[in-house]
Amino acid sequence: MQIRVDWRSSCSLTGTVLKWLAVPLAVPLVLAIFDGDDPLAFLVAIVATAAVGVALERLSEERSLGQREAFLMVALTWLGVAMIGAIPFYLTGVGGDPESAFSAPVGGLVNAQFESMSGLTTTGATVMSGWDFENQSRAILLWRQLIQWLGGLGILIVAIGLLSNLMVGGAQLMETESQSRNVRKLRPHLDETARLIWGLYVGLTAIAAATFFALHLAGLAPNMDLFNAVAHALTSVATAGFSPEPDSIGAFEPVVQWAVMPFMILGATNFVLLYYVTQGDVRQPLRSEEFRFYIGVMAGISAIVATVIWIDPEITMGLEETIRHGLFNVISLVTTTGYASADFAEWSTGATHMLFLCMFIGGMAGSTTCSIKSLRWLVTLKAFRRTLFTSVHPEAVRPIRLGDTVVDEDTIRDIYAYVLLAILLFFLLTVFVVVDAARASTPVSEFEALGASASIFLNIGPAFENAGPMDNYAGFPVTTRAVMIAMMWVGRIEIIPVLVLLTPAFWRS
Amino acid sequence: MQIRVDWRSSCSLTGTVLKWLAVPLAVPLVLAIFDGDDPLAFLVAIVATAAVGVALERLSEERSLGQREAFLMVALTWLGVAMIGAIPFYLTGVGGDPESAFSAPVGGLVNAQFESMSGLTTTGATVMSGWDFENQSRAILLWRQLIQWLGGLGILIVAIGLLSNLMVGGAQLMETESQSRNVRKLRPHLDETARLIWGLYVGLTAIAAATFFALHLAGLAPNMDLFNAVAHALTSVATAGFSPEPDSIGAFEPVVQWAVMPFMILGATNFVLLYYVTQGDVRQPLRSEEFRFYIGVMAGISAIVATVIWIDPEITMGLEETIRHGLFNVISLVTTTGYASADFAEWSTGATHMLFLCMFIGGMAGSTTCSIKSLRWLVTLKAFRRTLFTSVHPEAVRPIRLGDTVVDEDTIRDIYAYVLLAILLFFLLTVFVVVDAARASTPVSEFEALGASASIFLNIGPAFENAGPMDNYAGFPVTTRAVMIAMMWVGRIEIIPVLVLLTPAFWRS
Ligand SMILES: [K+]
Ligand SMILES: [K+]
Repeated sequence: MQIRVDWRSSCSLTGTVLKWLAVPLAVPLVLAIFDGDDPLAFLVAIVATAAVGVALERLSEERSLGQREAFLMVALTWLGVAMIGAIPFYLTGVGGDPESAFSAPVGGLVNAQFESMSGLTTTGATVMSGWDFENQSRAILLWRQLIQWLGGLGILIVAIGLLSNLMVGGAQLMETESQSRNVRKLRPHLDETARLIWGLYVGLTAIAAATFFALHLAGLAPNMDLFNAVAHALTSVATAGFSPEPDSIGAFEPVVQWAVMPFMILGATNFVLLYYVTQGDVRQPLRSEEFRFYIGVMAGISAIVATVIWIDPEITMGLEETIRHGLFNVISLVTTTGYASADFAEWSTGATHMLFLCMFIGGMAGSTTCSIKSLRWLVTLKAFRRTLFTSVHPEAVRPIRLGDTVVDEDTIRDIYAYVLLAILLFFLLTVFVVVDAARASTPVSEFEALGASASIFLNIGPAFENAGPMDNYAGFPVTTRAVMIAMMWVGRIEIIPVLVLLTPAFWRS
Repeated sequence: MQIRVDWRSSCSLTGTVLKWLAVPLAVPLVLAIFDGDDPLAFLVAIVATAAVGVALERLSEERSLGQREAFLMVALTWLGVAMIGAIPFYLTGVGGDPESAFSAPVGGLVNAQFESMSGLTTTGATVMSGWDFENQSRAILLWRQLIQWLGGLGILIVAIGLLSNLMVGGAQLMETESQSRNVRKLRPHLDETARLIWGLYVGLTAIAAATFFALHLAGLAPNMDLFNAVAHALTSVATAGFSPEPDSIGAFEPVVQWAVMPFMILGATNFVLLYYVTQGDVRQPLRSEEFRFYIGVMAGISAIVATVIWIDPEITMGLEETIRHGLFNVISLVTTTGYASADFAEWSTGATHMLFLCMFIGGMAGSTTCSIKSLRWLVTLKAFRRTLFTSVHPEAVRPIRLGDTVVDEDTIRDIYAYVLLAILLFFLLTVFVVVDAARASTPVSEFEALGASASIFLNIGPAFENAGPMDNYAGFPVTTRAVMIAMMWVGRIEIIPVLVLLTPAFWRS
């Protein structure tokens, strides 16, 4: 006997999250007042989120989440926060400068939503014009960074605390599952897990900001002022990728580029592993098969990209520069951060194609990373090897192990399904992009469509050609941008929680 | 207790196939003599295949095939026939015109192998230059067509008679499995199945040739002479795609283009279904879920492509022309034939991108088609739908059905694995193509690399830009062409039979 989905509980919990969104919104409000800018946009957003939040919260008193209610709550929360988060962007555009991305009547609304959803989902794809980068207030620029940081925190809590219980696409399997269960046993409540993660995340962000600002104080990074240091700390650790600089990390000295890399890597590392490290068990990451795989993949692909840049007769870079740009941009795309240290869209095919493939990998499960994730690829490769073995020895029984754990067969099937589903939805998005471009008579190249679709759906950020890291997504038709908003949402919360909402079985009692 | 693989049995059976290859090689020999051309190349090939065949055949007397021996035999046979089949191409190049693809010392050998492997695997990607199309003897051109036809026959026998027993990537599951078992029960021996398929295949080819030539006799197709009618019948029914005309089917009247379509569709239809039709049960195909899926996919994508062509301001075509080119090229790529009715590489992104995606689909299992195949996609989509259902109702048990059959869970996992493995190997090939292009300083675009890799590995034939249907693959570096030869081989025999040869478990006793 299945009862009807209790959507009131889901809405009510989403309401609580929206209510509390008023607190981070106060940060850019204060900065706007401090800078003498108009704080109205943030005031409106704060009032709106508090009002909607409280109203939704009152829908239900009990708020017990089953499987379906949890899916609905996750989907609604990401959608609701993105919609509220768009208000400040939208209001800067009303009657604003025509060169702003947020000024056109319909386009401005879509662009504000795009920027907000891209922020919350830690995608980092922007529609902002050069005018926006030069003229928007620091408060608006900080809000872009902050909503990414919140998105990273949200996904960490969901990934470690919730999705693993919901068994989405094999997410029930983390190599450290037994360990995270130990952590949970120590701190038995979800609230406790959340507090633990929150502490780590805040701490890591603070260390990043301090590191970046220290480089400034040491005179090594003139333009990495306190604002920039905080802004980039927020979006490094969240593997998110927005930057107040139109040239991304390319705007900074080489030493800054080197300093950003470890924080992207840490942001995409399983936070349970990081927790063990903070407890003094610094060897724990090296014992993790997934961690070794994740680092190994980045090292291997960086080597290929650096080599391709090195032998390209049209690119003249020194050895350090070649290695730095190779490493930085591969780390940026594999961790799904989406920063750029150079306009990699200008590189030759050998390099751009490798960067395109990087988008599909992703960092470790249980981190802020997006995309398919190393854990799923590792299990997939192990399962492939097993398939070859059993093709030759059909009578053999050979369980797949990850660390000390035997991966059960249903999980392997779920992981296969997830990886394939992600690849298929990516291809479906490319179909929409090219057909919509034909409809709107907007020229688009195949690689532009493929790159932008992967980057949007897998929540990376920049892509190639007109969607390159030094350019923006405003060139796509407004309908394409609208669909991209939806796809960032679907991609970020691991696909299934949104897709199930489209099935009748979800709503039937 | 596993015993060592009995490679002698595998080689011996391959020897038998090679010995019999002398018979089809006699056809172009006779044509060369008839046309007054030099028959030496074919004589050498006949002697070589007979000698190698008899020598290999003597390696073993018993010749019992287990799982591993069957894999090895399939892999060796495709490799051996391709190597022998290259001899006529290679010999035309020795001391030949420098404009011929087969004339360069090393490149000529690789090109001859490429053409032969592309033929045997029914890929239909060519390296022949404009010079070759104009100056090669009809005997050589016929041999290209004939080796494709043989490749189609070979894969039919393997797919229906052998691979389904070997359970490669879910191939054990054909919707018509119970039916084909009935057929096998009626004709219990593999020899009998082979004879049945052979009869259908020859019959279909004869009908195609008669149809094409009838159009010529009726004055509707001036350049579809008897040679062309036979040549195109051979490669339509084999869904193979070589044409003696450099402009492929675009060289012929619209009526010919319409006439070719049904034969491509039939070639990629499960031959067991076709057998039932010949027995008078003409409704059988409509009862097949896979058949309806296969036809529906082609209809849907054709509609998109035709619409995109229609709204493209730079292409001015009438309605019939738009529909014809949309349908023809989608059918050609979904069935994996690889003919072209127009230079689709020149179309806008909306159309070329759809054609690129068509390459991954494939016709029905149990036919001459290549690529991933409709059956696997159908099961994948059904399994996705099931995943969404069980995400919401984890307690539900919901078997996946295909027609009246319940698909077992291991088969679903095998199909997922196969589809993913195919996509992954495709991406690996793209990496080789772009990195090798960088090494050789040969410019290649991303879409060129993606299209050519898909077309080669999935055995389609033409791709885009320099690998477009009116162009050829000779522009890729010789190392890339060499790797492509291997990948056509791997792709054609369903990946696993070659990959297992690379595992130590295959060779260990
Ligand atoms: K990102
Ligand atoms: K083909």
